[in-house]
Amino acid sequence: MKAGIVSIGTELLLGEVVDTNASYIASQLPLLGLELQSVIAVPDRMDSLVEAFQQAWQRFDVVIATGGLGPTQDDLTREAIAQLLGEEMTVSPELESDVRAIFAAMGRDMSPSNIKQATLIPSAQAIPNPRGTAPGWWVEKNGKLMVAMPGPPAEMQRMWEVEVMPRLRARIPGDVVLLRTLKCFGLSEAEVGEKAGRVFGMGNPILGVYAKPDGIHLRLMAMASDQEKATALIAEAENRLRSTLTDHLWGTDSDTLENTVGQLLSTRHLTLATMESCTGGLLASTVTDVPGSSAYFKGGFVAYTNDMKASLGVDAGLIKEHGAVSREAAEAMAQAARRQLGADIGLAVTGVAGPDTLEGKPPGLVYIGIADGKSARSVEGRFPPRRVDVKRRAAVYALFVLREKLISSPS
Amino acid sequence: MKAGIVSIGTELLLGEVVDTNASYIASQLPLLGLELQSVIAVPDRMDSLVEAFQQAWQRFDVVIATGGLGPTQDDLTREAIAQLLGEEMTVSPELESDVRAIFAAMGRDMSPSNIKQATLIPSAQAIPNPRGTAPGWWVEKNGKLMVAMPGPPAEMQRMWEVEVMPRLRARIPGDVVLLRTLKCFGLSEAEVGEKAGRVFGMGNPILGVYAKPDGIHLRLMAMASDQEKATALIAEAENRLRSTLTDHLWGTDSDTLENTVGQLLSTRHLTLATMESCTGGLLASTVTDVPGSSAYFKGGFVAYTNDMKASLGVDAGLIKEHGAVSREAAEAMAQAARRQLGADIGLAVTGVAGPDTLEGKPPGLVYIGIADGKSARSVEGRFPPRRVDVKRRAAVYALFVLREKLISSPS
Repeated sequence: MKAGIVSIGTELLLGEVVDTNASYIASQLPLLGLELQSVIAVPDRMDSLVEAFQQAWQRFDVVIATGGLGPTQDDLTREAIAQLLGEEMTVSPELESDVRAIFAAMGRDMSPSNIKQATLIPSAQAIPNPRGTAPGWWVEKNGKLMVAMPGPPAEMQRMWEVEVMPRLRARIPGDVVLLRTLKCFGLSEAEVGEKAGRVFGMGNPILGVYAKPDGIHLRLMAMASDQEKATALIAEAENRLRSTLTDHLWGTDSDTLENTVGQLLSTRHLTLATMESCTGGLLASTVTDVPGSSAYFKGGFVAYTNDMKASLGVDAGLIKEHGAVSREAAEAMAQAARRQLGADIGLAVTGVAGPDTLEGKPPGLVYIGIADGKSARSVEGRFPPRRVDVKRRAAVYALFVLREKLISSPS
Repeated sequence: MKAGIVSIGTELLLGEVVDTNASYIASQLPLLGLELQSVIAVPDRMDSLVEAFQQAWQRFDVVIATGGLGPTQDDLTREAIAQLLGEEMTVSPELESDVRAIFAAMGRDMSPSNIKQATLIPSAQAIPNPRGTAPGWWVEKNGKLMVAMPGPPAEMQRMWEVEVMPRLRARIPGDVVLLRTLKCFGLSEAEVGEKAGRVFGMGNPILGVYAKPDGIHLRLMAMASDQEKATALIAEAENRLRSTLTDHLWGTDSDTLENTVGQLLSTRHLTLATMESCTGGLLASTVTDVPGSSAYFKGGFVAYTNDMKASLGVDAGLIKEHGAVSREAAEAMAQAARRQLGADIGLAVTGVAGPDTLEGKPPGLVYIGIADGKSARSVEGRFPPRRVDVKRRAAVYALFVLREKLISSPS
């Protein structure tokens, strides 16, 4: 079945508020087997609202609206639905006493304008809203369904979870929709698209490919008559993708690289130390975004000068010979970090964040060094030369290199 | 003139991404005197796209689209615009060599699928995109205008600011709209609202108050028949706000705290070193987001353990007595950082990022220490206890403290 979202509020069209309600509801609809066809945001104006409702009501089986249920003159959602369906709004005595009770509980008088929050039309039932004064509307007519919920996210989400979602689940027959995201690093969006395209047809599951700060995400969406079949569809597609993307895949769904390496370090009882120049602390900061990272992270050095590198035990002659931006420096920095802090693994980043060249080397060039008690190695990366992006990508790359090392060593 | 936004991407309709592009563009349109009538989000499907474009093209003078300009099969924005206008897409040799040059600069071959990023139709001009491989499209036909920009926010915002906004401003007649943002730290949104309300009436300029990661922003929007009148309106309002918000105001418009302190350090010929625990490297990373920061930033320590602090010269007895999360530790860390790296100023952060308590102290409690050759001082901060927010706010607070020190000392 097809669904549409109508987000109501002039503040949305002035960019004063980001429409998080729409993305929240959008994330819930696949769980009901509802296919979201569009989200439209409209201002608090009668003509805009009625037009958006007309289109959505015509095209979709289920319409979800948020906003415009407040007590003020510019709250027009109820009026627009009444006009759409050609029905008349009347005050419901029960709703009126509910709204009065809410104000009494707050020790305040109900303002006359709140009376419109107690209105209904013949096709609408009220949806309780214990977090505010505006009940929602559950509207059924001619086999179609419209749900109007208040705009404040806390009121809307509670109403969705407790009231709307269960009713919709009981009413909507049909398919289960299952989502699965695979996360990939070290290939471009186009390369992932091509590799995936070779093992992947159109149809079910549907594949989406997205460039994200931590690499490329592949999203599988499967539809089937029950959970088991959907799971099997996803598993089969995931196997095909894994066979072609192999080691570039590092995680799924809500995994982050910093959580992944944190878990690997914890289970292997290994500790980590970092030394970084071009990332300027971002690598250590990303590692320590994980709650509990103090159990395995011994600390880090932001070695922004060659003097500081030398004082930490990076051979000054080596830097003189190869430059601070070199494989050799990256490996020596990784060794120095682990030695200084008595850690099992040292991880280092050196490179050119830009905008200027350094040692004649171009912005975007980075070296990742990694060392344990036995040996050190390094890899080279080249990124588009925008300073904050270079920092971010270099930090992600370092975590990816660390992950590779951890999964290749026995636990 | 009327405008509409079309946001393209299946991820928007699955709720995987919040549509921040739409709210960004929405916030910009009033500056051009454009009235935004609707925002519609549609999936990466040809029929949905063409339908959304048809409606928007019919109803609005200016249509702004984002997303769907990538290299993969599900990137269909160009194809949909071509179909809407009944025009044929052809490869532009100049665009092709541009895209090839981007890949060459990264030391990689262009994937064949990227060729579609070099296509145009007769009504479209390419809009440069130095941050990615997808140029935008500027489409003019029959007195109407459509702009298609890439979905990644960093690419879109740069394209908007540098390319699209100036061209639109040149094309759209009407009142001058002038914006001015004042940036404030150390007061809550409500406190700023109250203080501002006391000196500020309704009308022109309009005042908006927004909570942001680096404090509270006050946005003034003035409309007038010419630039001079708008400037005078803004100046008068700004003076009134400065009289009540005083030292809490630290910057305007595109200022960032890290740029502000960078400039102050540069002009005073002072150098900086950092030592941080709970921020885990984020303070140093923020300092080094500024191009050229290596001129004044001597380096930093992410001292995540008491052992590391002690090895850098923080008195172990002091930590034993007061705890690592204390004013005393913060001051000692600041002193140790500047001593270790021979810097003029040492800046330190210690605190509880959470989610667990530390030394019996609650998540969200932080101390900022700052020291020069003569003395050290510290301040306490308490932030809502969400780990990444505590890190971010503590880093911002440290920079604010550094700025205060720098502006109070003679240059």
